Amino acid sequence: MPHGRPALPAALCALACLLAGAAPARPSQTPGPLPATDGADDWLAPYREISRRLLRAAQADEVGWHRLAEMTDTFGPRLSGSVGLENAIHWAADRMRADGFDVRLDPVMVPVWVRGHESAEIVRPWPQPLAMLGLGGSVATPPQGLEAPVLVVRSFEDLDAVGATARGRIVVFNASFTSYNETVQYRTAGPSRAARHGAVAALVRSIGPRGHRTPHTGATSYPPGVTLIPAAAISAEDADQLQRLQDRRTPVVVRLTITARTLPDAPSSNVIAEWRGRERPEEIVVVAGHIDSWDVGTGAVDDGAGCLAAWEALRLMKTLGLQPRRTVRLVLFTNEENGLRGAQAYRDKYLHELDDHVMMLESDIGVFPPLGFGFTGSPGARARVAQIAQLLQEIGANRVESVGGGPDIGPSAQVAAIPSLSLEADDTRYFPVHHTHADTVDKIAPDEISRAAAAIAVMAYVVADMPMRLDEQ
Amino acid sequence: MPHGRPALPAALCALACLLAGAAPARPSQTPGPLPATDGADDWLAPYREISRRLLRAAQADEVGWHRLAEMTDTFGPRLSGSVGLENAIHWAADRMRADGFDVRLDPVMVPVWVRGHESAEIVRPWPQPLAMLGLGGSVATPPQGLEAPVLVVRSFEDLDAVGATARGRIVVFNASFTSYNETVQYRTAGPSRAARHGAVAALVRSIGPRGHRTPHTGATSYPPGVTLIPAAAISAEDADQLQRLQDRRTPVVVRLTITARTLPDAPSSNVIAEWRGRERPEEIVVVAGHIDSWDVGTGAVDDGAGCLAAWEALRLMKTLGLQPRRTVRLVLFTNEENGLRGAQAYRDKYLHELDDHVMMLESDIGVFPPLGFGFTGSPGARARVAQIAQLLQEIGANRVESVGGGPDIGPSAQVAAIPSLSLEADDTRYFPVHHTHADTVDKIAPDEISRAAAAIAVMAYVVADMPMRLDEQ
Repeated sequence: MPHGRPALPAALCALACLLAGAAPARPSQTPGPLPATDGADDWLAPYREISRRLLRAAQADEVGWHRLAEMTDTFGPRLSGSVGLENAIHWAADRMRADGFDVRLDPVMVPVWVRGHESAEIVRPWPQPLAMLGLGGSVATPPQGLEAPVLVVRSFEDLDAVGATARGRIVVFNASFTSYNETVQYRTAGPSRAARHGAVAALVRSIGPRGHRTPHTGATSYPPGVTLIPAAAISAEDADQLQRLQDRRTPVVVRLTITARTLPDAPSSNVIAEWRGRERPEEIVVVAGHIDSWDVGTGAVDDGAGCLAAWEALRLMKTLGLQPRRTVRLVLFTNEENGLRGAQAYRDKYLHELDDHVMMLESDIGVFPPLGFGFTGSPGARARVAQIAQLLQEIGANRVESVGGGPDIGPSAQVAAIPSLSLEADDTRYFPVHHTHADTVDKIAPDEISRAAAAIAVMAYVVADMPMRLDEQ
Repeated sequence: MPHGRPALPAALCALACLLAGAAPARPSQTPGPLPATDGADDWLAPYREISRRLLRAAQADEVGWHRLAEMTDTFGPRLSGSVGLENAIHWAADRMRADGFDVRLDPVMVPVWVRGHESAEIVRPWPQPLAMLGLGGSVATPPQGLEAPVLVVRSFEDLDAVGATARGRIVVFNASFTSYNETVQYRTAGPSRAARHGAVAALVRSIGPRGHRTPHTGATSYPPGVTLIPAAAISAEDADQLQRLQDRRTPVVVRLTITARTLPDAPSSNVIAEWRGRERPEEIVVVAGHIDSWDVGTGAVDDGAGCLAAWEALRLMKTLGLQPRRTVRLVLFTNEENGLRGAQAYRDKYLHELDDHVMMLESDIGVFPPLGFGFTGSPGARARVAQIAQLLQEIGANRVESVGGGPDIGPSAQVAAIPSLSLEADDTRYFPVHHTHADTVDKIAPDEISRAAAAIAVMAYVVADMPMRLDEQ
């Protein structure tokens, strides 16, 4: 649960409002804060033209998409601990400096899990390969693999009901994908639940809609005290096949080979670029994505696109000479996928600044197409976010959903009850490629990055520039 | 081009027509042949009720789909020379015998190409894997792989224009998929065209629509006199990535490893089951599919579904006690994918019977959903096929397209100008999984097999039973 946060001193606020009117080359008609009940959106008036300029500029070129393509084509996947990730981090920092920003790399030690060689195949009734991806964090099998009869279950309840039968078997969790939130438990908790029943390994139906025999990797977790067993995702097709064989009472034996290793932690960094506020630089609006990815595909959708959309938002403000009152800080977090170490390091390093974080926004659900924002925060702040979102009507990004935030901003936001936004997008094209080999830049249209950048730019600029703090009473 | 075929002797025809009226427990009202210009479809009248029975029976159960699932789940892919194929052949023959048919296995020696271990990866600018499948028939690279700079071309014309540049390189053919017929030339002829320009290997953008980074295998051919170079398909995503890197003038080096081997020919078989004609058993209507597949996926769509649809057609007739005048012969050909040896063996073995092949029908374009037939033959036969197809209106399978036939029936049909049909289907769900790991039974709905079986059953039954031969003047 979020902790409380002291309100901004009234005097400072009054001073800020006073200064606002006097600032040159800014929306000169910017009024001071108004009562929430009367003419509540007049404060927004000066931002209408600015938002139009941002939207126009965002959609005038395809810089974001081309940078995303360059990063993913050149460095490929960016799992924590890989040289690809570190190369991409340095590439991004160099490009941001070339854009004219102050850039720093905040060092973070990250876990290193290396996939190695892996395979799964049906041995009986007749040899044939399964489409699989080891789950991130999985322990290895013996080098020659392990062979065991299969037990297919559709749910944890099924498993518990046949508990003893699981002993010595490879348990296959075959829960059909409904939504990510509903089914991801089988990936995160399935292997340890199977281990408790004495299973020797776990195979989890991929958390995603049926693709082209597409396995989806992702993290699994082993609570303390549970025997670690090897764990892999298999494609929906393979899970269905194992289910049909079991339903026909055909005995099935599978061989699973995983040579994954966990190595000592390695250095990585969060990338920070700032567009310093002209009046209240100590107050910070964070726009973020995570630059690490899984080690399959090229992490274009998860979360290269989020990084580029946030980065483009910053670049657009600067290009148009729109320097807001407060600082807008771009953060590309490291190690979201298998550790959240970047998120924790940010929280710890900037603990003393979190009370001055006016808003944090993360884009980590794809950008195709952007539909608006999720929001978590006070009702007053929500009302303002909803007003600002109306500026995004022409690009269809004006929704405000009931819950916002993101995995990387979460740890900081919780410490200081910081109003948290997520860029929201139609996820129907996100989950088919999520954590798969198919997470590549061609899945995203250039104008989708542009529109996402526009949405973030408008939201972040207005929140960073408006006279009152977002959550001011 | 088809050769001429002598017309059926008039006396035999007259006799047959006479006998037709006298046959017991048959559509007793079956009339003799009528003038083509007057009441031309009256001969069809007795078949309306029969076709309704066939359609009803076909759709009353899901035997076809469940058998397809059993075959593909149990034996997996069925490439020529594999034990999986031979197991499936014997399984099918046993099941057909259990259905009550006379079954024989016609022996055929087939080529044996074994994929082995294979991979392709970008080495420069930064290591990352490519999604690939070696092309069937490809020669091997050196065991440690071969490394070479990449040259991406969009067409043969592009390649010819930069000819000398190809020397020592891996040529990537990046022609976007439009239709199979238009683009398959890059898979079949690309590697040899690249070899002529001195390339050391060829990568071909997969012949299929963009999937989930899905490579599509298939046969390539090396004309005599051309140096054999290793050849593989890569996914559309990977071809686009290599194109973008080249367009940015980033030097790209790829390592390709293929350990494929061609072994001595191995024994296989065509599976033949007959439903013997009651009056003219020597006249034959062939319904067919091919039981072999590529070695990826489980060959459910290509062409397990075609086999099961044709097989179910035969079984339905028998189940309903519908024994036509002529023999209906089910042929599950072997080695369609990489040799057509089954097709050639059938032609050679049954050469003396081909003049009595009244029609050949092959289902090899998927069955989802069946739309009708393609037809190649005389105008008179086409008109009759079109009339029969009208009986399939209620299942939407009443189209007759301008060209018909199939790879396995082609060699026989050409020798004797046999009227040739293909089952036609909407191919929008066929080409995405064609020759991929995703060719699995879940891609097909049970009622799609049932409707295909119904369409084949009605067409084959009427052609096998009607008083005149299909192409009689």
